[in-house]
Amino acid sequence: MQIAILGAGAMGSLFGAYLSQNNHVCLIDVNEKRVDDLKRKGVSITEKDQVRTFHPDAVCDSTGMPVADVIVVFVKAMFTEQALETNRRLIGPDTYLISFQNGAGHQEKLGKFADAEHVVLGTTQHNSSILPDGGINHGGGGHTFIGLQSGNCEKIQHIADAFTACGIETQTAQNIGAKIWEKLFVNTAASSLTGLLQVPLGFIEEDVHACSLMEKLAQEAVLVANAETGAGFQAEKVIADIKTLLRNAKGGYTSIYADLRDGRHSEVDTISGAVVAAARRHGIQVPFHEAVVATIHAMEDRNDNIHRP
Amino acid sequence: MQIAILGAGAMGSLFGAYLSQNNHVCLIDVNEKRVDDLKRKGVSITEKDQVRTFHPDAVCDSTGMPVADVIVVFVKAMFTEQALETNRRLIGPDTYLISFQNGAGHQEKLGKFADAEHVVLGTTQHNSSILPDGGINHGGGGHTFIGLQSGNCEKIQHIADAFTACGIETQTAQNIGAKIWEKLFVNTAASSLTGLLQVPLGFIEEDVHACSLMEKLAQEAVLVANAETGAGFQAEKVIADIKTLLRNAKGGYTSIYADLRDGRHSEVDTISGAVVAAARRHGIQVPFHEAVVATIHAMEDRNDNIHRP
Repeated sequence: MQIAILGAGAMGSLFGAYLSQNNHVCLIDVNEKRVDDLKRKGVSITEKDQVRTFHPDAVCDSTGMPVADVIVVFVKAMFTEQALETNRRLIGPDTYLISFQNGAGHQEKLGKFADAEHVVLGTTQHNSSILPDGGINHGGGGHTFIGLQSGNCEKIQHIADAFTACGIETQTAQNIGAKIWEKLFVNTAASSLTGLLQVPLGFIEEDVHACSLMEKLAQEAVLVANAETGAGFQAEKVIADIKTLLRNAKGGYTSIYADLRDGRHSEVDTISGAVVAAARRHGIQVPFHEAVVATIHAMEDRNDNIHRP
Repeated sequence: MQIAILGAGAMGSLFGAYLSQNNHVCLIDVNEKRVDDLKRKGVSITEKDQVRTFHPDAVCDSTGMPVADVIVVFVKAMFTEQALETNRRLIGPDTYLISFQNGAGHQEKLGKFADAEHVVLGTTQHNSSILPDGGINHGGGGHTFIGLQSGNCEKIQHIADAFTACGIETQTAQNIGAKIWEKLFVNTAASSLTGLLQVPLGFIEEDVHACSLMEKLAQEAVLVANAETGAGFQAEKVIADIKTLLRNAKGGYTSIYADLRDGRHSEVDTISGAVVAAARRHGIQVPFHEAVVATIHAMEDRNDNIHRP
């Protein structure tokens, strides 16, 4: 398959590298230095017991490239439409657009560039971060799901199979909306806290105070998810699943952690902020979410002051 | 007057220095290096437009010192009883014990060393921090109040007058419990956030997200204070007063900020933690306080990991 990955950050590079084993993959990123590094050095992936280097293509400008079979969107949520617009030449009538971005509400943006049967939503438990040398630290793995809003899974089974064949074990999901909430539970209850506290994922499970915050956030998010999807999530089960994931990805760092560490603005509005927005629609009180979102925005503002005094 | 100050940190040094203008003052601290520095260099106080140096006495061991007229307790809340026990020789039947410590619940501890008519509670809006050279940055001033639980103010008017004569404008207060809550409002709604966000006081008023958190915390604290004291605090008035104080002490840093910056444990349990405890007694929900207390404890734990890996 011809696969274009929009955004060569930690997750885009990880998926691009893995998928390049059986497919023609091109990483597309506006950051020239990043693209140069990828061209020269490839993508080095550090895992528990090994470092492997992969060599997908990398470009800033997709001019002259063929229409893609699959475009995977890994840019930050605020840049989705801009990235798709710039690379519109890669989108044909049979091209699938897949978003694995954190949070909720991405299908509306993708829907401006393809019909509903080609807008694929995905969630993955893989996490990764960019190392100081530009390589990728693959913090941990887990399930990856893709689905169409129509629930019609057969049409995209070949994409799941292609991912699985490259070592990203992927299943199709009929109720991808519920799967997205499952992922959102982890992000809103745990990832946000790793940014706020500037700690690796494992800390949230190991530290009694961080863990109590995570549980409060998960309880709030479950109330909202059940109102949104009717999926009947159970808070205890959700919390137990989050703890398992945190243990498995113990040493992993999140993108929100790195964003706040490096003085960038984070995606908190598409994660915990999306929960606050959904809670408002349903008249549900989510004070712990409000506290986390406001704290992270205040940290961003503080960092702006430090970096641009 | 013979005045002993227990704890030669930022606030103890500030008060000791000012009071030494008209009184015999001795700063007592367990930190030998700090005491040596104070003996050699005195207390240098940096204010808006000037630096002045004062020379109160400073000792680690109070052996041989006379009974004090006034003992001012400025140690961290968890060390109050230990400090008074160690310096019990300074406490005579006419000695007043004054606590200006943040938070609530200090009278019980002081009450173990003096009768109720000699246990003075105080609050002050002065704030200060220790500079890298050991000097004191006097971030901002304001009202100082002292009172007895009995409300009998005349007996301690001479202490208020002595403080005022040295430039610490001090009034007696009949309802010192309400005054302590007024101070607690600032500490629980704003100081805690300066620690959590690692910012100066002014940021809490200037930043829209930090300010929204401050307001939520103030609203919760007012509900609890009214249940505790029946004083009928109004949230809008409390918030307006906090904002004024934050503007006046714009560049000031709090002790909780410095504690978290330097990897020490903070006094959050006697500040926001005291509000959570009082809220529980009255069945009041204070989720923003719970979030702040848990976050600061998690930061302390994270710092412990960094400093003692």
